[in-house]
Amino acid sequence: MPYAMGPNNYGKSGIRLVRVARDTARHGLRDLTVHTALSGDLDATHYTGDNTGVLPTDTQKNTVYAFARDGIGPIEAFAERLARHFVDATPAITAARVQIEEHAWTRIGDHSFTRGEGGELRTTEVVYDGTSARTASGVRDLLLLNTTDSEFNGFLADEYTTLPETDDRILATAVTATWDYRAEPDDGGAFYDQAFNAARGALLAAFADTYSLSLQQTLHAVGERILKAVPEVGEVRLSLPNRHHYRFDLERFGLDNPGVVFQAGDLPYGLIEGTVRREAA
Amino acid sequence: MPYAMGPNNYGKSGIRLVRVARDTARHGLRDLTVHTALSGDLDATHYTGDNTGVLPTDTQKNTVYAFARDGIGPIEAFAERLARHFVDATPAITAARVQIEEHAWTRIGDHSFTRGEGGELRTTEVVYDGTSARTASGVRDLLLLNTTDSEFNGFLADEYTTLPETDDRILATAVTATWDYRAEPDDGGAFYDQAFNAARGALLAAFADTYSLSLQQTLHAVGERILKAVPEVGEVRLSLPNRHHYRFDLERFGLDNPGVVFQAGDLPYGLIEGTVRREAA
Amino acid sequence: MPYAMGPNNYGKSGIRLVRVARDTARHGLRDLTVHTALSGDLDATHYTGDNTGVLPTDTQKNTVYAFARDGIGPIEAFAERLARHFVDATPAITAARVQIEEHAWTRIGDHSFTRGEGGELRTTEVVYDGTSARTASGVRDLLLLNTTDSEFNGFLADEYTTLPETDDRILATAVTATWDYRAEPDDGGAFYDQAFNAARGALLAAFADTYSLSLQQTLHAVGERILKAVPEVGEVRLSLPNRHHYRFDLERFGLDNPGVVFQAGDLPYGLIEGTVRREAA
Amino acid sequence: MPYAMGPNNYGKSGIRLVRVARDTARHGLRDLTVHTALSGDLDATHYTGDNTGVLPTDTQKNTVYAFARDGIGPIEAFAERLARHFVDATPAITAARVQIEEHAWTRIGDHSFTRGEGGELRTTEVVYDGTSARTASGVRDLLLLNTTDSEFNGFLADEYTTLPETDDRILATAVTATWDYRAEPDDGGAFYDQAFNAARGALLAAFADTYSLSLQQTLHAVGERILKAVPEVGEVRLSLPNRHHYRFDLERFGLDNPGVVFQAGDLPYGLIEGTVRREAA
Repeated sequence: MPYAMGPNNYGKSGIRLVRVARDTARHGLRDLTVHTALSGDLDATHYTGDNTGVLPTDTQKNTVYAFARDGIGPIEAFAERLARHFVDATPAITAARVQIEEHAWTRIGDHSFTRGEGGELRTTEVVYDGTSARTASGVRDLLLLNTTDSEFNGFLADEYTTLPETDDRILATAVTATWDYRAEPDDGGAFYDQAFNAARGALLAAFADTYSLSLQQTLHAVGERILKAVPEVGEVRLSLPNRHHYRFDLERFGLDNPGVVFQAGDLPYGLIEGTVRREAA
Repeated sequence: MPYAMGPNNYGKSGIRLVRVARDTARHGLRDLTVHTALSGDLDATHYTGDNTGVLPTDTQKNTVYAFARDGIGPIEAFAERLARHFVDATPAITAARVQIEEHAWTRIGDHSFTRGEGGELRTTEVVYDGTSARTASGVRDLLLLNTTDSEFNGFLADEYTTLPETDDRILATAVTATWDYRAEPDDGGAFYDQAFNAARGALLAAFADTYSLSLQQTLHAVGERILKAVPEVGEVRLSLPNRHHYRFDLERFGLDNPGVVFQAGDLPYGLIEGTVRREAA
Repeated sequence: MPYAMGPNNYGKSGIRLVRVARDTARHGLRDLTVHTALSGDLDATHYTGDNTGVLPTDTQKNTVYAFARDGIGPIEAFAERLARHFVDATPAITAARVQIEEHAWTRIGDHSFTRGEGGELRTTEVVYDGTSARTASGVRDLLLLNTTDSEFNGFLADEYTTLPETDDRILATAVTATWDYRAEPDDGGAFYDQAFNAARGALLAAFADTYSLSLQQTLHAVGERILKAVPEVGEVRLSLPNRHHYRFDLERFGLDNPGVVFQAGDLPYGLIEGTVRREAA
Repeated sequence: MPYAMGPNNYGKSGIRLVRVARDTARHGLRDLTVHTALSGDLDATHYTGDNTGVLPTDTQKNTVYAFARDGIGPIEAFAERLARHFVDATPAITAARVQIEEHAWTRIGDHSFTRGEGGELRTTEVVYDGTSARTASGVRDLLLLNTTDSEFNGFLADEYTTLPETDDRILATAVTATWDYRAEPDDGGAFYDQAFNAARGALLAAFADTYSLSLQQTLHAVGERILKAVPEVGEVRLSLPNRHHYRFDLERFGLDNPGVVFQAGDLPYGLIEGTVRREAA
């Protein structure tokens, strides 16, 4: 075979699962989007279209719904159940990655819930290779904004630099954070929810408390605080778009603007990405 | 002129305004998107490109930021201030429409805030014609879901009907609601916020409390409840997509599904739209 | 009934229909999104949840697919077939609106096609009230850009005006155009495709040929040209966002910028909307 | 430092650059979105907010516009010029990644152009580490659809499998393809455009010509054909969502459906990803 397959995987994306807990009159509601990706000995389907080893993506979808019948638990545990199943039950499959995003709803009645369109997501990704599972969790689309306590100055200026220094700006971002769990907990259920809440709380507190000289500094502070809050976390990966807010020039109209009126920018935006690790450098 | 202009307007859309209140150490934050649309004697620019009467859309944008300098108040009052200005100060302009959407942020510190991407919007539209202002307010992208107490049966069946009747389904929607205020309040500020909160609360309560035989019935119940809650409202316009949730067939796998596992649908979706009025039919 | 229903309608939105013509080895492909909206005597479902007169939106969807079995023809004719059916065959329904968007694919083989994600849409809306059908057609998401022959000056300046006059700018827009057909053609099929092509061609030619002193002037020119090209059109409605392109200031870097380097803006954008009619003013 | 930075980078995303060539009356138009990402010795800004080594993302944006003054050429060459500059001219920076997406416009006049909203993108990513540049190019949002010559059967069935086998289905996908160039060409300009056109042409031909037993087989065929068409390409990475088209069941209405009427699905979708390499396995 002159042209060989390199890394590859296949699965079902965007599986929209809603589960209702009806054990009591006060119903529970879970709202997940699940993505599966399987890999293994799949040369035959690529080279000749022989699908003998291919578990259809439609089956993967069915499996997600079937496994939800008896409860979901934390998304980390549900993802791992699925990943283990796909590898253990499918001869050609040697590794599975299951990603889940969860939308939180707010209760307004015994069987009634509300949320805004979009919103913050709780996320997880579990990779199982037949031996062990690696679990990473996080948040996405979590917007944070500080109205002050943010500077940006002392930076390198070259011939293309026109940005003025500032000692007071709005700092706003849309957090994508992912943290790896180094150890598998004894009681998956309780652990994952507690760890998530601790990590998310640390994230918010770090953002609110840090007097920021750069978004990079805030990034490190957020990572450090999560690591301190959750001993099981080995590293934190952060992607922080800098959602620029431009102080609008009102002097042209005979008005001052002491940091009160801003134009929220859209494109382009800064993007600060980095990993913070427990280990010393 | 053989080809005449019919109705027309022009303005600036997507003006992203963020305002910080810094009067105390506990900052305030407002996050608005403003759209302006002016109309009047604008034949010259259409027929010959004579822009003598045209206030640039860039100026309209500048005006929004300048007017925000001294505070915004309820979005209804801010929209009216702007609409009156555009008509009163611009000779060729005889009518102005100002639409505003507001994103609510949640406080997490004295100068720190959070929200999820997207989210529910509070909206207003004010139209001023040189004499009086008409104000409509509402919500958009407000998701609501009931896990039970929703039926759909007894409907008309023709040769293309395959939908089974159901006496227990998930009812989910993304509310766009607009209500007209019939009277101008004496104290705009306090009134509009109170009225909005009362209307929104009535909307949620109606959705949660109504045992629904059709989404149309829920629509009427929501409109009726808002009208009862806010005497100043004359009519309520509602656009309710029916976000279908399909009970997943688990019997194929030897499992039952007593209303617990659902596939959230995307396209197509039902769309129920209607107006509920105070006046008797 | 103290709280009465005002105008209302219901239907199915986002019905994704793909039809393959397999009569010959050279297959044909049509890709439509259909939206239905029915109105009539629907008080019962709103007031009491009595659905006796309600044809389910699921049935409306089924009907769209069933009617496509024997061919679609121009979207205008397909929309009218559907609208007439919903009114004529459903006792409670007195009016139907059917909207269709069509995605054009480019052939790359006898049974192979390509297009870019998104793309320009051909649109139609047919409203049938039991007696006659009104048909409007148009385009959406059609981007047009002139690199020169666009000025904007001589405009009104007030105390908030800072925009400099310009005698050479990029003019860019994303056209939404809708034109009403005044008369029903004898041969729907051929007429609608011919009229569409003539109108679209006139639109492009008018945009390319007009030396523009304002986007309003371009709007009128486009409307006029469509009216001249298609005698059956009674009026043209246009919505033209002004997609601003800002000449980037390169002088700060010792470079000139004779209209070659631009920053494409996003939010905010101007929005110019207007109707051009055959009748004299 | 107990909590150390791991891999990190920062830059400006979504830089919207439009360039007009005005050398002759027949203007040229280029429409790019540029993303920059720099990495290097950036510990100080992360740990203490010392920005001495930080070239602002605003400066990176300015540089993109300044470099466009004298022409862009193929996006690969433009990305490399930028990447080399950022590393060579900035002391702390040891590596730069520049990604570019290009929108193609269709000429409709000497200075007039059109395209649909969205559309297919030509992409590139250049990574420069101070010594050498690696260049990868590709396409995104390229939709392809075959109306026949696609089967899917003989697959593994477990207890959750309900998918019927099919010997004739629609095969539709939205291609994201990336191919690595192994060698730097002598004449960057002409080479990159020729190679792109050859690769894109091979991609389309492979999709159209392959009788497909699985989307995986099509993926391999596409990769193989690109490798054959462009000797400088070392490997091809493909991400192919399977955009399911469901044959609509018309038998319920007394109609047959010999592969003519389909419901285009949305969520969930299959996702097939893989790399095809020149080297033997």
